[in-house]
Amino acid sequence: MKKINVMQDVLSSNDLTALQNREYFNKNKTLVLNIMSSPGSGKTSVILETIKRLNGLKILVIEGDVAGDIDAKKIEKSGTDAFQINTYDSCHLNASMINKVIRKIKVKYDLILIENVGNLICPVEYNLGENYKIVILSIPEGEDKPVKYPKIFEKSDLLLINKIDLLDYSDFDFEKLDETLKKLNKNMKAVKLSCKKSTGFEDWIKWIKEKITDLA
Amino acid sequence: MKKINVMQDVLSSNDLTALQNREYFNKNKTLVLNIMSSPGSGKTSVILETIKRLNGLKILVIEGDVAGDIDAKKIEKSGTDAFQINTYDSCHLNASMINKVIRKIKVKYDLILIENVGNLICPVEYNLGENYKIVILSIPEGEDKPVKYPKIFEKSDLLLINKIDLLDYSDFDFEKLDETLKKLNKNMKAVKLSCKKSTGFEDWIKWIKEKITDLA
Repeated sequence: MKKINVMQDVLSSNDLTALQNREYFNKNKTLVLNIMSSPGSGKTSVILETIKRLNGLKILVIEGDVAGDIDAKKIEKSGTDAFQINTYDSCHLNASMINKVIRKIKVKYDLILIENVGNLICPVEYNLGENYKIVILSIPEGEDKPVKYPKIFEKSDLLLINKIDLLDYSDFDFEKLDETLKKLNKNMKAVKLSCKKSTGFEDWIKWIKEKITDLA
Repeated sequence: MKKINVMQDVLSSNDLTALQNREYFNKNKTLVLNIMSSPGSGKTSVILETIKRLNGLKILVIEGDVAGDIDAKKIEKSGTDAFQINTYDSCHLNASMINKVIRKIKVKYDLILIENVGNLICPVEYNLGENYKIVILSIPEGEDKPVKYPKIFEKSDLLLINKIDLLDYSDFDFEKLDETLKKLNKNMKAVKLSCKKSTGFEDWIKWIKEKITDLA
């Protein structure tokens, strides 16, 4: 007797909606990045510095926050389209929230930057239909965050290390960070940034441009 | 006809277990503080600096982390009893996790410091049986966190503002913070701390000692 393993992908309702989002983004050749981090690690500042350097591209920023619209206002002030999602008691964005935004989109975007709710745990469990997951870790948070919150570092495609300007006032240990990341996600590239000093953005911008070219 | 509103408190299963924890702590006259914040705002450093200043008290630290036991090891190294809870996929501690620790406690503690999982959203929804909720906000996170994550600031009894040594390298706006807190929780006291410089701890230690005296 031969044994046959019948593997069935049982997709969750969130994954099914994420697939629909993915199809929409594919059809429009839109690069979509899901940007995740702790509260206060500088997601909005990174996004503002990023869009400044991508002149000529049609960009939408989707802001996920439990409450308020501070971040969406900052983005709009910079002249870029922004959409605020308030999640109320929910600690992460989900695919259905992004789907509701898609239904309101009237133009073709080259790039959609999704700023997830500030949280190192749950956001990574919910695919939104993005092309890539980006995780930000800021220097004052310490190099031990991937030990304590491993999944988001395991599943992300790129690590942005922000607030590098605070390195002199911190005990951040890059050797220990490298050691942890080697175990969790050895192929993940890391880029060091400072939004305050406006430095380190070249590699990140190059990475985005390459990914947009890949879609063409 | 008179209308009578019958209000019924329907306690969740978590609240029922929290009540049991509360009864145990009351019986033992143990002050229990639930310490919450973003990842990397310095919960463990604040706890280490705190226990150093409370010589003569019998203290237990309960460490909540998604993964790893870095923090519990740090506490034990300082000579204080510590208990590590790993929550795996859960983004907060709950009353039942604390109840399991209680069942293993063999001595009477004056003070139990519970370090919750680093998360500004969900931990506040789960009572653990604590006497007070303490929220930490660190300077590099920015003064806008209570706008974006209001509930934890609304429901906490004391705010510790940590990493005050980084104020010179930050745009942190205390006026804006005060404005937000006035709306959310106008009676909440705030204490400014620096674990790095070991400053600002007097008021916080005084607060703890007063609360311990209140229990006697």
